Amino acid sequence: MTSARMNRRAALGLAGGTALALASSGALARGVKAPQAWDRTVDVLVVGSGFAGLAAAIEARTEGADVLCIEKMSIVGGNSILSGGGLASPGNDLQVAAGIKDSPELLLADMLKSGGGLANVECAKVVAYGALDAYRWAKDFLGVKFDRLGYQGGHSVARSACYMNGNGANMVGPMAKKAKELGVALETRTRLVNLVTDEKGAVVGAELVKGYVFPKEDSGTRMFVRARKGVVVAGGGFSQNVKLRMLHDPRLGPQLESTNQPGATGDAMMAAQRIGAADVQMDWIQLGPWTSPDEKGFGVCPKFVESSVGYGLMVDPKTGKRFVNETGNRKVRSDAIIATGHPAVILVSEENAGHVPPSTIKAGMENGSIRRFANLDELAKFYGINAESLKASVTRWNEAVAAKKDPDFNAKIFKDTKENKGVFYACRLWPRVHYCMGGLAINPKAEVINTDLNVIPGLYAAGEVAGGVHGMVRLGTVSIADCVVFGRVAGRNAAQRKI
Amino acid sequence: MTSARMNRRAALGLAGGTALALASSGALARGVKAPQAWDRTVDVLVVGSGFAGLAAAIEARTEGADVLCIEKMSIVGGNSILSGGGLASPGNDLQVAAGIKDSPELLLADMLKSGGGLANVECAKVVAYGALDAYRWAKDFLGVKFDRLGYQGGHSVARSACYMNGNGANMVGPMAKKAKELGVALETRTRLVNLVTDEKGAVVGAELVKGYVFPKEDSGTRMFVRARKGVVVAGGGFSQNVKLRMLHDPRLGPQLESTNQPGATGDAMMAAQRIGAADVQMDWIQLGPWTSPDEKGFGVCPKFVESSVGYGLMVDPKTGKRFVNETGNRKVRSDAIIATGHPAVILVSEENAGHVPPSTIKAGMENGSIRRFANLDELAKFYGINAESLKASVTRWNEAVAAKKDPDFNAKIFKDTKENKGVFYACRLWPRVHYCMGGLAINPKAEVINTDLNVIPGLYAAGEVAGGVHGMVRLGTVSIADCVVFGRVAGRNAAQRKI
Repeated sequence: MTSARMNRRAALGLAGGTALALASSGALARGVKAPQAWDRTVDVLVVGSGFAGLAAAIEARTEGADVLCIEKMSIVGGNSILSGGGLASPGNDLQVAAGIKDSPELLLADMLKSGGGLANVECAKVVAYGALDAYRWAKDFLGVKFDRLGYQGGHSVARSACYMNGNGANMVGPMAKKAKELGVALETRTRLVNLVTDEKGAVVGAELVKGYVFPKEDSGTRMFVRARKGVVVAGGGFSQNVKLRMLHDPRLGPQLESTNQPGATGDAMMAAQRIGAADVQMDWIQLGPWTSPDEKGFGVCPKFVESSVGYGLMVDPKTGKRFVNETGNRKVRSDAIIATGHPAVILVSEENAGHVPPSTIKAGMENGSIRRFANLDELAKFYGINAESLKASVTRWNEAVAAKKDPDFNAKIFKDTKENKGVFYACRLWPRVHYCMGGLAINPKAEVINTDLNVIPGLYAAGEVAGGVHGMVRLGTVSIADCVVFGRVAGRNAAQRKI
Repeated sequence: MTSARMNRRAALGLAGGTALALASSGALARGVKAPQAWDRTVDVLVVGSGFAGLAAAIEARTEGADVLCIEKMSIVGGNSILSGGGLASPGNDLQVAAGIKDSPELLLADMLKSGGGLANVECAKVVAYGALDAYRWAKDFLGVKFDRLGYQGGHSVARSACYMNGNGANMVGPMAKKAKELGVALETRTRLVNLVTDEKGAVVGAELVKGYVFPKEDSGTRMFVRARKGVVVAGGGFSQNVKLRMLHDPRLGPQLESTNQPGATGDAMMAAQRIGAADVQMDWIQLGPWTSPDEKGFGVCPKFVESSVGYGLMVDPKTGKRFVNETGNRKVRSDAIIATGHPAVILVSEENAGHVPPSTIKAGMENGSIRRFANLDELAKFYGINAESLKASVTRWNEAVAAKKDPDFNAKIFKDTKENKGVFYACRLWPRVHYCMGGLAINPKAEVINTDLNVIPGLYAAGEVAGGVHGMVRLGTVSIADCVVFGRVAGRNAAQRKI
């Protein structure tokens, strides 16, 4: 049987035969053609320098590949540098020390539950079963320091190994250092413009701009880089691209801010789409329920909130009453807050705030987003809440704490959750566009799938730019596991690709 | 200011500057290049012969264009020929005769409500405000006969003008006849393989296969048709493409049947994606809640159900109790039935079945999907329902009917809804994949948008192949309005395009 016929058969199985068009139309062209002469040649080109990009670059280099990792912004780290979380990893040593039982199966179950049936189960498995190894690799091989175990809404147990001070820079730093030590060429202000394909549609390189000054379209100079083995796209999401997010979800207009760095415009993803990459679930754009209108960007409140849920309570200032499960997933909480039409107030007693890093409270009190109150009357007065109904809500929550069961919203209550009384910390919350669940269609090998449902040879994607791994809702800190696990898968497969 | 710079500025506004890549990369190619010689030349090529395709062809021809309308299957009509509905049109004469007040604003409100915030409001407006004219055009210009007013779940009022016997063929027929009378070349077994683009990425024609025998990939012969003004893609959805629907919603595997004709594989859409067309909301694939496991395909039960809701009731045979608002939208009902894990049973007394076309009951009783029972005991016995709890449910429903208010699920109850007693008709229901909410991104002019958020010159889309018009959930019979309204918009704009 000729390979053409085999392709045809395969195509039939894949996409009702639509791929015949490609198989038979030699004239079909996508992307930019190779230049007369390349300006530079490497084995693997990695686009993006966040957790996924750096993991891909390090892994490809470890596999012996000559690697160029580019970042369009002026500093390394992409949006990961703003991460306030940690690495969800079932069975990590911090869990063991805390005597918490966990397993990849339980993480997978949590992921699929919040994914609402839209998660690509095979890809989710890669993350769930690879997360612990990713944590150990980050800790032991990269030298990332993890200083505490964190809990995030929607997880069955606390399983997030948080990097120092829950500051993404404390993981990006060691990753970038290791990449350079290993000999990865890590170049900032270098932007992917177009992917270069051969006559078969395989990715063989890229058209870049060096000396790019975001967002100046005219800045920098063009160059063509040949990528012998392949290109890994790890350019992140498009939360800052208002027009693009509105194409997929018209509700997410300019009235909603984003937690992301300004460069999160999705242009690396769009370069891949320009050569036929399929996208999936682009309309599932996640809002963060824990951002405060009293500070800019991601801020420090998210860490305050995720360290306080399960201990304190969240109320609608208009009623003084709780209105949602504080330990519910991000969508549940964001939708509930937006439905009230105004910012919510989360409060936790000083005694229950032991899981909030002191640096977080300090920073929040300095920028005015987090406040300390001697008692509930002062808190109620400051936020304009009816003091009596607030006290009634706290009393009812304390009864739930005592019973270790929340009869109203079934929020998780921890072993060490204490009665909320005395001095309180509090902040206001209003959601922001935080994460793009959708993105490029990939398979468990991190290979990018085109709109005819075939693999695009030489093109890999990992991290937020890839879609379908989490489904409808992504749980906190699972994206960091996703970035490291799939970044490494992409880097390894690119480096090992037979050409 | 040079036009290049203007393009750049425009691109910036559109997509965070990503379109610079296109603007500056003359080498970027997509699609098939024009052949040495075209086999045929027309003004407008229309792909697909359902309601949208025929409306586009007729309108383009009316505008004076030389039109070729192709259909890959052996008969004209696409999936529209299977439609059991009508044309949602606020203010149509059947509503007036029934004394029902309605307006485009009310239809738009219903559309946006069921769209759950994902509908492209500007596109939804085009449908809501154009629906009445579309109905009059179909009735007066095309000669389509409409014989009754229908109600569909999720609508505020009965507003569906149903074509004769609620049979889509009775609308496809007059449309095809008119198209031929006007001189449209209407050719079956002709399949779109690839779109042909010029160096600027504008669509200038198409690569087709004539004599195609679905689904034989090797059948037919290639030909290139030049389309001077443009190409209208009206190829329908992809409900029958299991691999594609699973890429976007992994739940919709081969275990779920589809109501669609086998040719609904989305390959015209994929041809557009191959030249850079963006897709939106592909993961919103609608299940029809009204199909019966006791008959194949679309069947006759949907018409029985949509003519019975608001009169009779639906119960879970395991409990004998109602479990969902029978007049809720398709998603509400499909999700609720699937959640029970087994087919539901809908029943309506003979007295309340006056809105069900006799031909429907006759056909259903002949194929065994609809059954007639002398009393509730016989009905309960046949479906294995506990007779006492079924009778209790009917009694409670009759109380709601008397009060004209459903305290349990807030189902709509009509003025002429009577007590359910005596002889009953009933059928079992299990959802099937029915409609792809997502598809090609279009603007209100039916122009197709590419993944860089720019219009693709010369390419238009209408009907189910276009996405974003309805959002999360589409209301029954609004798609027929969508097909006719946007089909005409696409045909007119293609014919009037300045070249």
